[in-house]
Amino acid sequence: VAELRGTALHGKAAIGQSGGPTHVINQTLVGAVLEACRHPRIEAVLGARHGIDGMLTENFVDLGAESVANLELIARTPSAALGSVRKKPKPEDVGKLIQVFRKHDIRFFFYIGGNDSAETAHIVRELSRKEDHEIAVCHLPKTIDNDLCVTDHCPGFGSAARFVALAFIGDNLDNRSLGGVKINVVMGRHAGFLTAASVLGRESPDDGPHFVYVPEVPFRVERFLADVKQCYEKHKRCIVAVSEGVADENHKTILPTTETDSHGNAQLSGTGALGDYLAQLVRKELGISRVRSDTFGYMQRCFPTVASEIDMREARGAGEYGVQRLMRGETSGSVVLRRTGEGDAYAVEFDWTDLANVAGKTRTLDSSFIAAAGNDITKAFVHYAAPLVGPLPAMGRLSMIAPR
Amino acid sequence: VAELRGTALHGKAAIGQSGGPTHVINQTLVGAVLEACRHPRIEAVLGARHGIDGMLTENFVDLGAESVANLELIARTPSAALGSVRKKPKPEDVGKLIQVFRKHDIRFFFYIGGNDSAETAHIVRELSRKEDHEIAVCHLPKTIDNDLCVTDHCPGFGSAARFVALAFIGDNLDNRSLGGVKINVVMGRHAGFLTAASVLGRESPDDGPHFVYVPEVPFRVERFLADVKQCYEKHKRCIVAVSEGVADENHKTILPTTETDSHGNAQLSGTGALGDYLAQLVRKELGISRVRSDTFGYMQRCFPTVASEIDMREARGAGEYGVQRLMRGETSGSVVLRRTGEGDAYAVEFDWTDLANVAGKTRTLDSSFIAAAGNDITKAFVHYAAPLVGPLPAMGRLSMIAPR
Repeated sequence: VAELRGTALHGKAAIGQSGGPTHVINQTLVGAVLEACRHPRIEAVLGARHGIDGMLTENFVDLGAESVANLELIARTPSAALGSVRKKPKPEDVGKLIQVFRKHDIRFFFYIGGNDSAETAHIVRELSRKEDHEIAVCHLPKTIDNDLCVTDHCPGFGSAARFVALAFIGDNLDNRSLGGVKINVVMGRHAGFLTAASVLGRESPDDGPHFVYVPEVPFRVERFLADVKQCYEKHKRCIVAVSEGVADENHKTILPTTETDSHGNAQLSGTGALGDYLAQLVRKELGISRVRSDTFGYMQRCFPTVASEIDMREARGAGEYGVQRLMRGETSGSVVLRRTGEGDAYAVEFDWTDLANVAGKTRTLDSSFIAAAGNDITKAFVHYAAPLVGPLPAMGRLSMIAPR
Repeated sequence: VAELRGTALHGKAAIGQSGGPTHVINQTLVGAVLEACRHPRIEAVLGARHGIDGMLTENFVDLGAESVANLELIARTPSAALGSVRKKPKPEDVGKLIQVFRKHDIRFFFYIGGNDSAETAHIVRELSRKEDHEIAVCHLPKTIDNDLCVTDHCPGFGSAARFVALAFIGDNLDNRSLGGVKINVVMGRHAGFLTAASVLGRESPDDGPHFVYVPEVPFRVERFLADVKQCYEKHKRCIVAVSEGVADENHKTILPTTETDSHGNAQLSGTGALGDYLAQLVRKELGISRVRSDTFGYMQRCFPTVASEIDMREARGAGEYGVQRLMRGETSGSVVLRRTGEGDAYAVEFDWTDLANVAGKTRTLDSSFIAAAGNDITKAFVHYAAPLVGPLPAMGRLSMIAPR
């Protein structure tokens, strides 16, 4: 019965966005805001600027006062409209948070983010009960990495995967026209989902990427060089996809030296070091002159016009569903997607799971998605990911008819 | 009268694509092929694989035998469908070329490319007259760098500029959400047109890029750091656009060490070195912790789905027009675009210029396009470039209404 006290809760809702932005995180925001406005038990919808930071400093905006037209435009705008933050609250922060929530009569807490955000929601829930200011909490999933547990896939992944698939379609044509070796570094520290999406646009047997290296498989430099050599000898060209997070058998970076970020983690995004290092290796060890690397970087998560329609719809629905669950009496949980149809009949249902099943946990590529040789991606992955990315544009190719 | 002998020419046409691919180089190819098929004096349209290389090795395909439907699909496909090449023919190559043309009864030579390709066409024309196998030659302009003389702008530029503008629209939102300094390196060795396109999506006064550094202005590290510092102190964020070709007062790279390509030129594309160097400088000299760089790389010229409609149409028209000029009796020249309407009434006409006006010459940003301070782009450039890029998607932004 204590678990259903949420049904009686009445007050304001606070919503925040956390972690790396995505193409569709604003869809989830707008889905939650518009749905929340329909429920009389929610007196106001406060948006926190820069997630937990804005909540701690009472930096709120009135999202219910935004026009629907403007919200709809924001929904189709990449990145986090409220501003985002990378911060795990410390125990004293959570205490402060409950004070702020009490002061503003906030009884519903929505946090859009990855597994860290689920953990934050979990901590807020637990402390709010101890402090006798009960707050119903809802984690709304968001990550381009697709690394959350329980859910079939994460809002944000399909659109970033679409960007990667399109980039490889174009770059495969570029590499075909001028030859040589091309190394593209794709986001993904621990999970190779986004890098795996590089294969989604392959049509012909000689289309690249010819090899895909994900963090789930230990990266061996000799193997990489042998792969590239063999492909280059056959096609006079080779294009590979590499996750920024590839590491050796001991989970150590393959780079000789590395910058670290403010948390002491190796800085992977926002630097071309890995691609440049691999390109230099190919140049020196294989004696191939035309070798280039690109690091796709932040465009993967915010480039306008590429968002997947399905992803937009699901991200919107996740926001709406989270509000509905709290309104139905749930007091704590995370929205998940369950796939109910495959292929052309692709369909999903929203569902709900305990925060503990998501908080701080990381999913990686299923082994069935990785080719046995460890340097490519399987058809099972294509089957899984293609509906999330949506139809890719057909590319033309000359028939190369010999003159009479 | 000798100049009009072309009117009597009768034989096959050879067409090739040269240099870096673009989003719309296949539009020009298809425009030329479909137009050539309508003229009885052109007996066949031979496509050379990898430009001059395919001509020297008689590696031809019959483009007239391709279905129109397939050609139309190819027209909307980025990169060079015939394959491209980076090669200036040597004098002995041109002699060989004339032999091949004589053997295949090729009397019309179409070369799609930049100023090097115009030069190649010029040399072929001159030698063909000496060798008594007269060939009418037509250079069809193509470059994302927009660095050809005479023409108002170059097919290929509008689409690459659209990619850059979109990327900055998204990255400005990303930078706004998480703060910090972001450095984006854009293609352009000598001409800053593409980097200048980074400003086309700016809407609000605080939208990035906050600074733009082009090769036309000597790059001073102290100035760059002072710019970034001032912006960061004001907005807690800063996003800058830098041409890959920025250089100091003595036209030397600002990088401590640099790879060189097979021609001994500094390798600028396909490496993250410049962005990483500048990011490191900002980190060390200004003590800012969140500093990232992205090097946009090859996506700028081949990413599917972003081509500008105007650019596609103009690229197509250039190919058609070149064929028409040779059929009307011209024997040598380059297709140029003349702007006949501005702003909403933007319009162009095709025209023709001597190869000597284009061959080997490079246009750079007009000084009226560069802000007096040398670190930004003017409205005059926006007026010039906006029609070429086409309408950019509107982005939403919260009104940030204070809660009651």
